[in-house]
Order: sequence, then structure tokens, then C-alpha cells
Amino acid sequence: MPNAFYAQSGGVTAVINATAAGVIETAARHRTQIGTVYAGRNGILGALDEALYDTRQLTADALGALRQSPGAAFGSCRYRIPQGDAGDRDLQRIVDVFAAHDIRYCLYNGGGDSADTCLRIARVAEARGLPLQAIHLPKTIDNDLPLTDCCPGFGSAAKFVATAVKEVGYDLAAMQRNSTRVFVLEVLGRKAGWTTAAAALAGDDRSQPPHLLLMPERPLRPDRLMDAIRHCEQTYGYCVLVVSEGLRDQEGRLMAASTSRDAFGHPQLGGVGQRIAADIRQALGLKTHVAVADYLMRSAAHHVSATDQAQAYAVGEAGIEAALDGASNIMISLERRSDEPYVWQTGRRPLDAIANCERPLPEAYISEDGWHITDACRRYLQPLIQGEAPPPYANGLPRYVKLRLQCTPRRLPAVPPR
Amino acid sequence: MPNAFYAQSGGVTAVINATAAGVIETAARHRTQIGTVYAGRNGILGALDEALYDTRQLTADALGALRQSPGAAFGSCRYRIPQGDAGDRDLQRIVDVFAAHDIRYCLYNGGGDSADTCLRIARVAEARGLPLQAIHLPKTIDNDLPLTDCCPGFGSAAKFVATAVKEVGYDLAAMQRNSTRVFVLEVLGRKAGWTTAAAALAGDDRSQPPHLLLMPERPLRPDRLMDAIRHCEQTYGYCVLVVSEGLRDQEGRLMAASTSRDAFGHPQLGGVGQRIAADIRQALGLKTHVAVADYLMRSAAHHVSATDQAQAYAVGEAGIEAALDGASNIMISLERRSDEPYVWQTGRRPLDAIANCERPLPEAYISEDGWHITDACRRYLQPLIQGEAPPPYANGLPRYVKLRLQCTPRRLPAVPPR
Repeated sequence: MPNAFYAQSGGVTAVINATAAGVIETAARHRTQIGTVYAGRNGILGALDEALYDTRQLTADALGALRQSPGAAFGSCRYRIPQGDAGDRDLQRIVDVFAAHDIRYCLYNGGGDSADTCLRIARVAEARGLPLQAIHLPKTIDNDLPLTDCCPGFGSAAKFVATAVKEVGYDLAAMQRNSTRVFVLEVLGRKAGWTTAAAALAGDDRSQPPHLLLMPERPLRPDRLMDAIRHCEQTYGYCVLVVSEGLRDQEGRLMAASTSRDAFGHPQLGGVGQRIAADIRQALGLKTHVAVADYLMRSAAHHVSATDQAQAYAVGEAGIEAALDGASNIMISLERRSDEPYVWQTGRRPLDAIANCERPLPEAYISEDGWHITDACRRYLQPLIQGEAPPPYANGLPRYVKLRLQCTPRRLPAVPPR
Repeated sequence: MPNAFYAQSGGVTAVINATAAGVIETAARHRTQIGTVYAGRNGILGALDEALYDTRQLTADALGALRQSPGAAFGSCRYRIPQGDAGDRDLQRIVDVFAAHDIRYCLYNGGGDSADTCLRIARVAEARGLPLQAIHLPKTIDNDLPLTDCCPGFGSAAKFVATAVKEVGYDLAAMQRNSTRVFVLEVLGRKAGWTTAAAALAGDDRSQPPHLLLMPERPLRPDRLMDAIRHCEQTYGYCVLVVSEGLRDQEGRLMAASTSRDAFGHPQLGGVGQRIAADIRQALGLKTHVAVADYLMRSAAHHVSATDQAQAYAVGEAGIEAALDGASNIMISLERRSDEPYVWQTGRRPLDAIANCERPLPEAYISEDGWHITDACRRYLQPLIQGEAPPPYANGLPRYVKLRLQCTPRRLPAVPPR
């Protein structure tokens, strides 16, 4: 009986474990075709290390709780298989491990890098004449994968950011009389402005927070920014900004990657949010506060988008179904049939068109002045944050599951630890 | 018929509007004794400006929504009535406005500064022979007011911090293999360690996040911190730190208030979290991420503690009841009768013992090594985060109320704007 390999790669999302649950529960419904799902410990490193969790150990209760738990239950990694000889050794080793455990389906759950890894494994297996179907399951809060309408993980990050900005807007409205006038929220999102754009859902129009969105697709012009902040503050009494970690200056340099050092010789302390706040205080003399969402926005399983969670689960389910259909070298995509009512389904897209390719916010989604989103962007974003799916609570806090799993016995000699 | 004045001061909390609802709804049940509650626009400035909202304008629906909405619905201020002649003019003006609007009850909802303001107003009224009962309603996420077991607003901030740390702990556990090893969460809390201590509720013991709490009550010794982080990272694979904005070095200087400038001459960019993260990267070479909770932790009305919300409401209710009892120069306190089961009630404490006095985390609540809390602290904190009270949602986001209120007509000549 062939088995499946499933692993989680890159930064976690609030719903990546829903995809894991989708894979494992769907495979369990097809026990006559799939023996077990082996989950790799720490992503593809689990294959390299032959550290495989047999997911038949998981009870139905554990799987139910897994669907709502943050983190990446089997451990993640940031490991890019190198090019050249070292990479070839890695790929051969992975295929050896798969062969030793009768793994015919490889489902890798990650972003662009893991799509590439998935494809390279498939090619090596093919060259060796081994049956292996490679299926990529998308995941990223950054929403920057091509050929899918959206990425599981993004909807929940979007809901986090929009909620935070909505709530902070009430805070600023209360405080602006003689205290804080400007608030800056720095968000994750790498080179794309999706998570920053999502903040716009907090308000009905540009008179409501967020007033200004600083997205990587628009290099920062500090003079224009200061004018825009002053205009907001004079018009509305305060100004709420959201800034992407990946914001760049006009020379294309990352704002957060300054090489500056402070008086003690320490490397630069803050990210882009603090940097912009310092500039605002200096240029405009306005009291400015900064929050940095960082991992909070990708871990907030207590406040996921039910739509996002459902899509994450469906992607896992569709991955197993595609495997059983004989599909290979594909990514499971999310396809939008209509905006309102929002109708979606999973699809299959060729993996070689996806790997290592990034999707920025389209021009048509950015307002003419560059500080906000268009109605088309709002129509795109709005469905993705719909619905709440709170976890169970115990003693005042969400109750999440920590899996205690044993690795399945080795069948190959160990390789030196990486 | 005498009227009441109610106003909101200082930083907002996720539940200060529940106190407002408690005041207004309780007064409405005593229409034969209280004409109306005038809410001051922007705290005590509303009295100085004679900008008073007649809360009889509010529908039952609006009051219900108010209870669950973030911010401070009538506007807040950071205004300390000065000493000397200017302060005397302010106080006389406030008493004039109260007299002009038949205000006999002054309920001021804030922290230590507003307790002082409340007391000074009462003394001026008394000196003029005017009947005025001054009642302070406590509010602060910092939990640093004396003579009350806890402060409304703290329980929800505590729940935010503990939830964030719990979720981020899953994130780090997944990423630590070859990515982020250290996570720093910077929290509000001013000079006291209460909000940092609350993070400890995320774990059952010190093997679980948060591993290290950096509280203002313990001056930072960087060498000891680096040893402690290295020990955590080697023992558990990663280390989650929570640091108070008010952390001080051994000379008593605020870590966040450095005067250092970067290479461009900008003032220091980060707060204490970024500063410590930079030190960790430099000293230990570990990948370190930083989040700064800032206003997110005091505005998160979507995730309040139901206990905190109930206490905030009860404080408002008790304020009106105390007024009708003839009490004056008091603060409404929260009194704990038992930890488990948690039994509490409101009380009344003399205002002159409270004003401008701060309560740090007691020594008995800090572990011997200074990095964590004791069991006594856990027993104190645990009840305060209990229960969820999610707001209604619409279109994927919490639905909060924005009050649209007209000020009641002036009865006095305007004074120059402040």
C-alpha cells in the first residue's frame, strides 16, 4: 500500500494546521488506497533526517483540535535545497527515504520555495524511474503566490490586521485631542503589499482608519508622506498608518535594512515602523505611537477567518484527492467563481509555473495617489476575512493541542545531522 | 433635579466603555433622583469647555453596543490641572460649569492623575459651599492603582498578552529548528510589571513560554539576561521573552528613553524591545524577532476578559449607587473575597489615599531569580482573565458603535480654547 508524505515549510500561519488536518482526515477516508500519511518533522528536513511521524497515532480529538491550533504542529523549517552537488545529494536522499517507506505521494505545504523543492524532488524521482506524485499545498500570510486566487493563511492575517486597525482607530479618536495623533502599525508581508492593503477593510472609506497604507509596490517619498499625514491630521484630527515590513525607498533599498548604528555602535534597533515614526516626530512634531504586529498576526488562531480556515482545510483535502486521481507536479489552487456571493473551489495548477515566482499587489488594486486601495481591491479582499471560528477556551485562554508523536522506526542508515 | 457628570481620562482600555454603560444605565434606573448624566467631551476638558453630552440621547441599543466597544466613547484627554493660579482658574471654572448644569455628582473614570483631579474639584466645591460628590472610577491597563484589588482594563490587557504569548510559543516551537530562536514581546504597563507578569498565564510552568519576564521592578543586568536566554535556548530550543516598556537599567534609567541617534542623526528608533533584540543578536548570534503590542493590547475589544468587562460595568454601577448614598471623595474599588472560586465585589476607598500613588508588583509576586512570577502571583492573576465576551460581528469584523452626540446648550460664556 503506498503512503503519503506531508510536511510544513516556512513561516507558519494561523491555519496551516487546518491543511494538515485536511490531508490526514481525507487520507484516512481512503485507507484502501493510502496506507498512512507520514508527517515530516520540521518540513523537508524530516525527509532528509528520516524523521517521520506516522499520523495514524493521532486520535480524532487530536485532529479536531489540530485544525484550530496555531504554529506548525509537525515543525517547520527554512531550508532551501542547494544547487549543485550538495543539492543533488539532498534530493537523492529524500527520494531514498520515500522509497524506503513506500511513499508515493509528496504533499509539501508552503510558499514559493517549497513549491520549487517539491518540483525538484519530483524530477529526481522521475529520473530514477520511481513513482512519486508531487503536490504543493499553498500557504503564506503574504498572499504572494501566483496562479491561486488567494493563499491559505492570508485571510486570517488580513482579519487580524483589519481588526487591529479598526480597534486602534477608536483608540486614536479618543486620544487625539491632546495626546497621540499618529499611529503606525508595521505588518509582515515581505515584498508584497497584500497584508497592508487588507487593513483598508477596517474602514468604509478613506475618512476612516487606516488613512495611509505604505506598500512595497510604491517606493516611499518621505516629503509626500509628511504632507499626507499633515493633511489627515488636520482633516480628521489624527492619522493611522499601516506600513509593510518590505517598504522600499526610491533607490529600491529596504527601509528596514538600514546599516545605521546608534551612538553605542549597536546595529539599528527598529524596523521600518519605528523609523517612520521617528521621522514623523521630527518633521511634524506630532505624538506618534508604533505597534509591530510581527508573529502575532500569523499566530492568532483565536481570531481566524472561518473562510480562510475552511479553504486551508479544503486545500489539504484536495491534495489527497488529486494524489488519488494520479495528478502530479501541481499546486492546489483556490479559484474564485464570484465575489458576491463569494463562490470558490479548489483547482490544480502546474507546479513549474509557480515555483519561485512572486505576485505583488496588482496596479489596479492601488489607488491613484498610492496611499490606499481601489474598490476592485476591496471586492477582492472582503470575502477572505468572513466568518469567525473561535477555538475552545479553558481557564481564560484558547485551548490548543500540542502533539506528542514518536517518529516511525528508521529503515535507512542515519546521515550526519544537518 | 441634580445631574451627574461622567468623563473618561488617560489611556483607553478595552472595557472603559463598559464603565460608561454602567454609569448611564444605573442612573437611568434612578430618574427620580438623577436628572441626567452629562458626559464630558474629552474628559475633564469637557467640563472646562462646557462641552457636555446629555446621555439621555443614547438609545438602549447604543448603550448595549457601547459596553462592548473599544476606545473611549466620549473622548479622553491627558490633561493635568496645573498647580498655582492657572490650576485655580481651571478648578473654579469646572465648579462653575457644574453649578450651571445642576451637576451634583462628579464621576471621573481614570488612573492616578484623574483621582487627584477629582479630589481637587471636590475641595474647591466644598470651599465654595456647593454640594458636589466626587467619585473616582478606576481604570488602567497598568493595574498600578493602590487600594483596589485590580483595575478595570487590566484583565483584558492581561488576556491579550497571555493569549499572544501562548500563540507565539507555538510559532517559535515550529520555527526554532533552523530559524527564529528568540522572540521578544514588548508590552505597555508604565512603571509596573503587572502586564508583563500576566504573560506567565500562557504557560503552566517555566518550561513553557514565556520563559523570561523583564519587569521594571528588576533593573536589567544584560550579562545575566544573555546567560538566561542561552540557557533557555539550549534547554527548550527557543526562548520567549516579555519586556515591560518601563524596564530600567541598573542606574535607574529607562531602557526605552535612550538619547542615542543613528548614523543619519535620527533619534533612537526603537523601544526597549528592539534594543534588547539587537543586543541578543549581537551577543548570542540568535535569530530574534520582536513584536510591540502598544495600543493593540488596550484596544482589543474583540478579545476582552468577561470578568474584566463585568467588573468595569460594576464599577460604573457602584459609582452611581455611591452617589445616591451620599458618598463623596471616594474611589470605587474592587475587593477580592476569595481566589478560587473567585469571589469579588465593589467597595469604597478614600480618595485622598489613592491620588498620585502607584502600586508596583509586590516582591512576593516575583520569583527568586527575578525572571518570572510566583505561585501567589499566578493565583492573583488567574481569575482576572476568565471568560470571553465577544462583540457582534458584521462582514468579518467586530461591530462597534460610534456615538454621534450633540453637546447640550451652553449656559456660560465660552472660555478661550485650551
